[in-house]
Amino acid sequence: MAENLQEPHQNEDVYALNAATVDAILAALEVGARDRLLEFLGHMHPADVADLLEQIEQPKRIRMIQMWGADIDPEVLSELEEGVRDDVLETLTAAQLGAAVQELDTDDMVYLVEDLEDAEKEELLDQLDDVDRVAVEQSLTYPEYSAGRLMQREMVTAPAHWSVGDVIDFMRASDDLPEQFYDIIVVDPAMRPIGEVRLGRVMAHPRSVMLEHLMEKKLRTIPVDQSQEDVAYAFNQYHMIQAPVVNADGRLVGIITMDDAMDVLEDEAEEDMRLLAGVGDEEISDTTWEIARQRFPWLLVNLITAILASVVISLFSATIEAVVALAVLMPIVASMGGNGATQTLTVAVRAIATRDLTGSNAMRVVRRELVAGTLNGIAFAAIISVVGIVWFGSPMLGLVLAIAMIGNMAVAGLAGIIVPLTLDKVGADPALASGTFVTTVTDVVGFMLFLGLASVLLL
Amino acid sequence: MAENLQEPHQNEDVYALNAATVDAILAALEVGARDRLLEFLGHMHPADVADLLEQIEQPKRIRMIQMWGADIDPEVLSELEEGVRDDVLETLTAAQLGAAVQELDTDDMVYLVEDLEDAEKEELLDQLDDVDRVAVEQSLTYPEYSAGRLMQREMVTAPAHWSVGDVIDFMRASDDLPEQFYDIIVVDPAMRPIGEVRLGRVMAHPRSVMLEHLMEKKLRTIPVDQSQEDVAYAFNQYHMIQAPVVNADGRLVGIITMDDAMDVLEDEAEEDMRLLAGVGDEEISDTTWEIARQRFPWLLVNLITAILASVVISLFSATIEAVVALAVLMPIVASMGGNGATQTLTVAVRAIATRDLTGSNAMRVVRRELVAGTLNGIAFAAIISVVGIVWFGSPMLGLVLAIAMIGNMAVAGLAGIIVPLTLDKVGADPALASGTFVTTVTDVVGFMLFLGLASVLLL
Repeated sequence: MAENLQEPHQNEDVYALNAATVDAILAALEVGARDRLLEFLGHMHPADVADLLEQIEQPKRIRMIQMWGADIDPEVLSELEEGVRDDVLETLTAAQLGAAVQELDTDDMVYLVEDLEDAEKEELLDQLDDVDRVAVEQSLTYPEYSAGRLMQREMVTAPAHWSVGDVIDFMRASDDLPEQFYDIIVVDPAMRPIGEVRLGRVMAHPRSVMLEHLMEKKLRTIPVDQSQEDVAYAFNQYHMIQAPVVNADGRLVGIITMDDAMDVLEDEAEEDMRLLAGVGDEEISDTTWEIARQRFPWLLVNLITAILASVVISLFSATIEAVVALAVLMPIVASMGGNGATQTLTVAVRAIATRDLTGSNAMRVVRRELVAGTLNGIAFAAIISVVGIVWFGSPMLGLVLAIAMIGNMAVAGLAGIIVPLTLDKVGADPALASGTFVTTVTDVVGFMLFLGLASVLLL
Repeated sequence: MAENLQEPHQNEDVYALNAATVDAILAALEVGARDRLLEFLGHMHPADVADLLEQIEQPKRIRMIQMWGADIDPEVLSELEEGVRDDVLETLTAAQLGAAVQELDTDDMVYLVEDLEDAEKEELLDQLDDVDRVAVEQSLTYPEYSAGRLMQREMVTAPAHWSVGDVIDFMRASDDLPEQFYDIIVVDPAMRPIGEVRLGRVMAHPRSVMLEHLMEKKLRTIPVDQSQEDVAYAFNQYHMIQAPVVNADGRLVGIITMDDAMDVLEDEAEEDMRLLAGVGDEEISDTTWEIARQRFPWLLVNLITAILASVVISLFSATIEAVVALAVLMPIVASMGGNGATQTLTVAVRAIATRDLTGSNAMRVVRRELVAGTLNGIAFAAIISVVGIVWFGSPMLGLVLAIAMIGNMAVAGLAGIIVPLTLDKVGADPALASGTFVTTVTDVVGFMLFLGLASVLLL
């Protein structure tokens, strides 16, 4: 009977680390019971061990890595987030890491060494055999976040004149097939990919059938310098499971598998979310100080825009002094505008990322956002004018609120879509600081409209 | 030579729909040139055709679907977002859809019929053969967004006593192997999965080797009623490519493949982002009216919280009347708190989703956020007190600003982490409306602290 590793679905924390296990591991660590520690870790999936290392405090993490030493699981290394990976690289010697690194696929080797200083990189690369070393050094020549960094060299290729039988015989004779591969890549004599065949298709045909009759010729190759974001998009859009990576000459240099693309897809969605909220590349393992320092610049930008809004308000000091109700009500118009703009912005950023918002429908979507913003502006103008009248007994104040609300909600819709589209057009990330920029617009316009109208109509 | 479908990497719009192609298609649609239209569409990937249908205006979309009629590509149907899928289902008759539906995998059939009225559902199910019909009806008994809705019935199973040769012979003899499968699932006589074997592993061994010696026994089975979010997490965390789905008795009822999990992973990340921004399930194909209507409730919640903040301000009307500079400066403290809280909240929501924030490190992260918020509060207190002194020449006003800033930033850090953790604890989505809730806290606390301190220290 197979071991069922699954928790029941009712469990809220399905797949999360089990608190009792974590406690037992930390207890073993505390008393220095190395065998017990390794026994526990050995039963966990490498990805879960990596999560554990990320979640515990740094001193304990360092201690655990030291205790593990040369026996560290290579698969855990490739699962670690950057901060923790660096802890491992600083704690263990190149000799201790040697055995583990050799067992990794080349894409994981690249991840491990790419941020090291030259001397340390050299030391670790010395642990690899020549073939791997050349492959890793080659990958490092490609830009960060490109297909070249994501690909692995481990793959199975065959010439078109091979038969199903040839492939099967080759695979049976080979003693180092990659752990992960789903397609045989058919190449011409210059190593240019000319087709691919699913393993299932190979197995479903008699030994005599030639690969060229089985292969899918409509091949989506990935240029080695393509951005990882585009790679992830292609995998998701076209349901790819594996794709050949080619250099400028069209020669096969590696493959990317779907699990790596899935990682990138999640990272990119998360990056959009963080950029919208004004958060950098922080990780759960970061210290308090790192967190505070990374968030500071974004908050500073917000402070400057907040001061800008204050300057706008200060222009109307005399009006506020005359009618103090304006000070009470002015945040409402600004806040509604900020919220409406954030709604539009969030949808737009995602739609640009998923290529749902393109040149062919941009104008229509801009129109839609402007009109939708105005429609909601009218609805909320009706509500807020009643509040103004009932609360402060001034129909004129209600009218000022209503007009300012409609104007600011229309501006919000427009700013929320124009800002990310413009950033995308000039080659910047559409999410980058657009939240701050857009809410600055709605704050300034909101205060200006509300206080300006009040100056004219109420004084 | 294979057709290289890849645009060069420099192209900003790589993989986006080509504007010229879209124009040509719309022109063919305009003049009713059906053959030309179908010729264009036939050259595109079904996922791209689906995107096209989503991006054009509804009248054109309906016209295109009508023109396509019974020849509609089944693969396009399974790629459509819900709004457009419903347009197709309303435009075409069950008879027209019949041929297309039969060609789909059962998971895609389920997606197509799940939201139909009973009578229409019946009519479409009548087009299926008995085996598919039973499979679809069975899947529909599982809750929406569960593994049961995500799984397909098309899979390859084998008993443990089969040899590699038996599998190969079976596959060669079979005439309806699934298009997508990467593992052979080994089952016991009661159809309970007891192991799985990668196709590559089968092919790499001689005909005589028994599956039970090749199979991986540590099997991650998915309970049929598990939430799709947990399924996606497992695929991503454990780099799964295919997983067997089992019912309460542990019997195999289907498989889920990684491309479906990847879709869910993207949807779930997007959902968090939308919930944080207060946006519902809208799609790029929605009309202006639908967009405005869906955003209204979220804006209404924001209006209520904005009025709440106004009520707090109104408590200090007399103070503001005495010192109008307070009205000018009060949005700064509130805005910085809102921003700080949003940063913490965004990171926390993602960390909960990726199971990086769990019971074992929650207390440490809460402490970290409180301290990091306070640290940045102190930094910005120093800056803003200088602004207050220089701008308004009042050291006491600078002091009020400074204290309020530190207090509100500390509250922001705390609220930003406590709110999502609490929502998660009680079984709600941690992202749900937490943005509005948290910024209400920082608005109220910000205004209260700043104006309250001013009443005491300045009057």
